[in-house]
Amino acid sequence: MKRNLLMLLVLVFLSNLANSQSNPVKFVRYSSENQESFGILEGDVIRELQGDLFSDPVPTGKTVAVSAIKLLPPCKPSKVLAVGLNYRSHIGDRPIPDHMGLFAKYPTCVIAHNDPIMMPVDATDLHYEGELVVVIGKTASKVSVAQAQEYIFGVTAGNDVSERNWQKIDLQWLRAKGSDTFGPIGPAITTGLDYDNLMLQTRLNGDVVQSESSKDLIYSVDEIVSYISHYVTLLPGDVIFTGTPGSTQAMHPGDIVEIELEGVGILSNPVEMAKKN
Amino acid sequence: MKRNLLMLLVLVFLSNLANSQSNPVKFVRYSSENQESFGILEGDVIRELQGDLFSDPVPTGKTVAVSAIKLLPPCKPSKVLAVGLNYRSHIGDRPIPDHMGLFAKYPTCVIAHNDPIMMPVDATDLHYEGELVVVIGKTASKVSVAQAQEYIFGVTAGNDVSERNWQKIDLQWLRAKGSDTFGPIGPAITTGLDYDNLMLQTRLNGDVVQSESSKDLIYSVDEIVSYISHYVTLLPGDVIFTGTPGSTQAMHPGDIVEIELEGVGILSNPVEMAKKN
Repeated sequence: MKRNLLMLLVLVFLSNLANSQSNPVKFVRYSSENQESFGILEGDVIRELQGDLFSDPVPTGKTVAVSAIKLLPPCKPSKVLAVGLNYRSHIGDRPIPDHMGLFAKYPTCVIAHNDPIMMPVDATDLHYEGELVVVIGKTASKVSVAQAQEYIFGVTAGNDVSERNWQKIDLQWLRAKGSDTFGPIGPAITTGLDYDNLMLQTRLNGDVVQSESSKDLIYSVDEIVSYISHYVTLLPGDVIFTGTPGSTQAMHPGDIVEIELEGVGILSNPVEMAKKN
Repeated sequence: MKRNLLMLLVLVFLSNLANSQSNPVKFVRYSSENQESFGILEGDVIRELQGDLFSDPVPTGKTVAVSAIKLLPPCKPSKVLAVGLNYRSHIGDRPIPDHMGLFAKYPTCVIAHNDPIMMPVDATDLHYEGELVVVIGKTASKVSVAQAQEYIFGVTAGNDVSERNWQKIDLQWLRAKGSDTFGPIGPAITTGLDYDNLMLQTRLNGDVVQSESSKDLIYSVDEIVSYISHYVTLLPGDVIFTGTPGSTQAMHPGDIVEIELEGVGILSNPVEMAKKN
């Protein structure tokens, strides 16, 4: 009888351990009293951590109410990459590419939940693009598709803000995709999800304008990480925008754009007109 | 007589002061006994500095022989940007663009003088592009052409390594321009030069294959910094490749490519075949 009880306890312990390893965890970065911190988001409370987000951070024991802090971008990427034309619903009449199409954004375009997207004074056709964004957890060079999961820390929501006219008239998409504030990400990075089966929804002033599951990605999250790592070494905190579904439309000053990713939450950003310079 | 001598001494002092402010200074980063340092290169000797390269670093009093250290890339950029089609001699029959064409490289493609350019296993047409590279010294957002000089720290030589086949077949140039090792810069950053009047020469295995002055740039150094800063905020240490003159040809494993920029020195890199993965 005692032996059975012991076996039961061991089983309960092992089962809890397995659950804790696969249970989604939401990580946020925030500023509070002019100090940058990061922690685990649980409901309306953040449990503060210290150390390196990507290398077993430890709890400080402090908790803070979400209402008392300002969210920051959930990580500070050294690189921001993006995949183009990765949903059939977005490609429309265009041919499906025979290999992955990549383009660049910049760390200086990254903004947080609630930060304004600043429309440049000479922009004329500024579109939202709701996307699932992969966050790298370990240095990745030449990793296989089968290994890719080991190098992924988690996912967040992103808005791949795009100036359509500049995409047409410029040599490359740098200005169209990489201008300041063109890369909202957040509100949290969630680990332990099935990244290839998450609903993604974009709302413009409350109207649903994009809605599709990441299971429709032409190149999966693992394929993206593997492919890029064969050319460009990915570092902890680097982020990859994985492509936008369906069609997009222009945003204007005064609009509010929300990107909701299942398991992550809602990334909301107002659009404002940049100042003349 | 005494008064005249005093006046003369004052004039000599003022003249020396003016010269010292405009005299070119060469800054290098290096590793020595597994420590990273930076300093001022004078002939065969480096005078070590400490602090922030971009914010009045101070001498430590230590000197080290160039022969005793390994040169590192002369700065650690948070962003690497590039201008395309910026010499008439490179544009050839193509129309001259009606506005500046930008594209992206990545910090992970930056390598130092003497580091190998690793040819990816699936690359088939890997070209050199010798270029003058601008190094930013102060955070620059929306600066005018007239103000641009204040934000420029100095210049270095760069090789904008480019996979021509990928430039043709990819959605954007990310892989063609941003793969690991595709951005050699160095050997030094030189301040106080007339950046728009420097001879640039590329040699492939000793043969001169590019030779032109930066006075032939279609968009000048100041125009480049100003234009970019209206869209993308530039940070201290960010680097901008300003375009390549003339024509380019393929490099192969075993080749040595040298980019010589007047006032800066020679950036030399061997080409090696990357390992299969």
